[in-house]
Amino acid sequence: MDQRPDIHAQTASTMTKRLLRVLSGERCERPPFWLMRQAGRYLPEYRKLRGEAGSFLDLCYTPDLAAEVTLQPVRRFSLDAAILFSDILVVPQGLGQAVDFVEARGPVLEPICNSADLARLDGTDITARLSPVYRAVERVVQDLPENVALIGFAGAPWTVATYMVEGGITREFGVVKSWAFEEAESFQRLIDLLVDATAAHLIAQIAAGAEIVQIFESWAGVLPARAFERWCTAPVAAVTRKVKARYPSVPVIAFPRGAGILYEDYAAATGIDALGLDSTVPTKWAARHLQTKVPVQGNLDPRLLVIGGKAMEAAVADILEDLAGGPFVFNLGHGVFPETPPGHVEALARLLLDGRT
Amino acid sequence: MDQRPDIHAQTASTMTKRLLRVLSGERCERPPFWLMRQAGRYLPEYRKLRGEAGSFLDLCYTPDLAAEVTLQPVRRFSLDAAILFSDILVVPQGLGQAVDFVEARGPVLEPICNSADLARLDGTDITARLSPVYRAVERVVQDLPENVALIGFAGAPWTVATYMVEGGITREFGVVKSWAFEEAESFQRLIDLLVDATAAHLIAQIAAGAEIVQIFESWAGVLPARAFERWCTAPVAAVTRKVKARYPSVPVIAFPRGAGILYEDYAAATGIDALGLDSTVPTKWAARHLQTKVPVQGNLDPRLLVIGGKAMEAAVADILEDLAGGPFVFNLGHGVFPETPPGHVEALARLLLDGRT
Repeated sequence: MDQRPDIHAQTASTMTKRLLRVLSGERCERPPFWLMRQAGRYLPEYRKLRGEAGSFLDLCYTPDLAAEVTLQPVRRFSLDAAILFSDILVVPQGLGQAVDFVEARGPVLEPICNSADLARLDGTDITARLSPVYRAVERVVQDLPENVALIGFAGAPWTVATYMVEGGITREFGVVKSWAFEEAESFQRLIDLLVDATAAHLIAQIAAGAEIVQIFESWAGVLPARAFERWCTAPVAAVTRKVKARYPSVPVIAFPRGAGILYEDYAAATGIDALGLDSTVPTKWAARHLQTKVPVQGNLDPRLLVIGGKAMEAAVADILEDLAGGPFVFNLGHGVFPETPPGHVEALARLLLDGRT
Repeated sequence: MDQRPDIHAQTASTMTKRLLRVLSGERCERPPFWLMRQAGRYLPEYRKLRGEAGSFLDLCYTPDLAAEVTLQPVRRFSLDAAILFSDILVVPQGLGQAVDFVEARGPVLEPICNSADLARLDGTDITARLSPVYRAVERVVQDLPENVALIGFAGAPWTVATYMVEGGITREFGVVKSWAFEEAESFQRLIDLLVDATAAHLIAQIAAGAEIVQIFESWAGVLPARAFERWCTAPVAAVTRKVKARYPSVPVIAFPRGAGILYEDYAAATGIDALGLDSTVPTKWAARHLQTKVPVQGNLDPRLLVIGGKAMEAAVADILEDLAGGPFVFNLGHGVFPETPPGHVEALARLLLDGRT
């Protein structure tokens, strides 16, 4: 399966996909767009299928269902990309950690607290354990419209480590920071394990047909600068190197949400191809300081997609004015909220395609 | 009480206070320091008094007790400032909104949802309603060591509005953003009311003896740039103008936590005297881009004060290396955590005073 480099060569055919053209540095008069969490709870057809599927993880690990959910928003809206329906916590599960999703509470993991817990994790057969994810990628490819690109993804090592160590969502990051600051050497082993596992997971998605990968660093905004460089920048650089060693022409997008001032050095230091901007990044500043180095993607506040109407239209116009002059992918600055009316996504798509809702 | 400008004139006497010298733009060989939330739950003497005092708000509104709690950390550690023990939510309470503090849940407010709710708020006699706060300031002044400065404070209008509209702590800011984005004119009325109330509250604290005021914008990091300029920068500029119209020589520190890239324009646009840095602001960058304009304050990750030892010492050394060459106030990048060992604060104080723990 790893022996199919042809589907990733930059042939004239694949490069007609608008998103791939922009990620190679081209500017498109009409910027391509997709939305983080474009597949999910805001869509009635997702809720219906989710109700029938059993657990959230059953959905992720059943190729037909994961592929169906991935394609739902592509059928409704004129999106330039599909992003595989999956979760960043399949990687810890693939390493042997117990992961569960509890309704109305979120993910619950048996926490990894120290070197002994770490020793029980095993990255050797992660792509075998996660093979249903790659089968889902293959199913999506079969039904993907020819102008739509397929994005695979993974969480960045630091972000995934926060869930693994805290045992779920945290607000203070007390346990994981204590480990990282106090016992940097053993924490480095966890990060190194995640670098290898994340790269293997992305490479397997590409081998199955993903044309682009995105690395989600959801918790880039909680570390001091020196710690950010060690635990966010360096591991993402290592993952990117490993992916590019196998698939040099597959674009890597990174989304270091909340990186703030640290956005500026991140693109060069990681070697990624494009930078996802969260909603707080000023677009005028991004045009001068980021887009001059790499294509950028973002960054409508997803709350404005819930609100819709004039407020959304004005914000979209501002973003386009500031960023559409260079290589730019329109997206949100964070995931679609479950309470988003699908009609607002439809209006956004019309606005981006035709310049009016 | 407003007729005592003499205590705030920049006489040789008041300017011997190290913190005031730095806030006037001077560099001190040994930077002054204080800690956000330096009075509070991590101190056993606080927990004892809190247990005897009744509710959290009883503590804030009983001048003797609030003054005692304010002074507790000053007695233990060689701090350069005391900060009044109070809460940013006394302002909504002073405007007539119902505010309660529920153990293990945090503040609970009867939410302000629309223009009709807004019409029931009344800012005319806010300083009369909050007079116990100013009595507490006066009590602190009586017992304050002569080299220690007294800081008054308030929440910034946007941050206080998030609590008022959401009814407490929020993670998504959905209700308050919907109001701000959809009905900007009526939301502006809430912000304008808060600008006046906040300025009046700060002015009354200064009149009672506060020598410095700090404005806490805890939720600076959740708005897109244009909304940040309207709802964070402009209101803080207005508050600062009002305070300076009455007390031109009293320094105003603002702490726009999470402002990221927007930190850069904030100082000039607001007219504040000094800028509080959260822990994610890179100190090398701050030395070049912020400290060249105003004195800066910050920004040790408070988690490192919980951890202590070598990790804390190394981080403190890095901060001093980057920022102690200019006008600089050592502080945390966020408040002291309740689980902080007081011995670590003692070690930090020794490190800052003597260069060793």
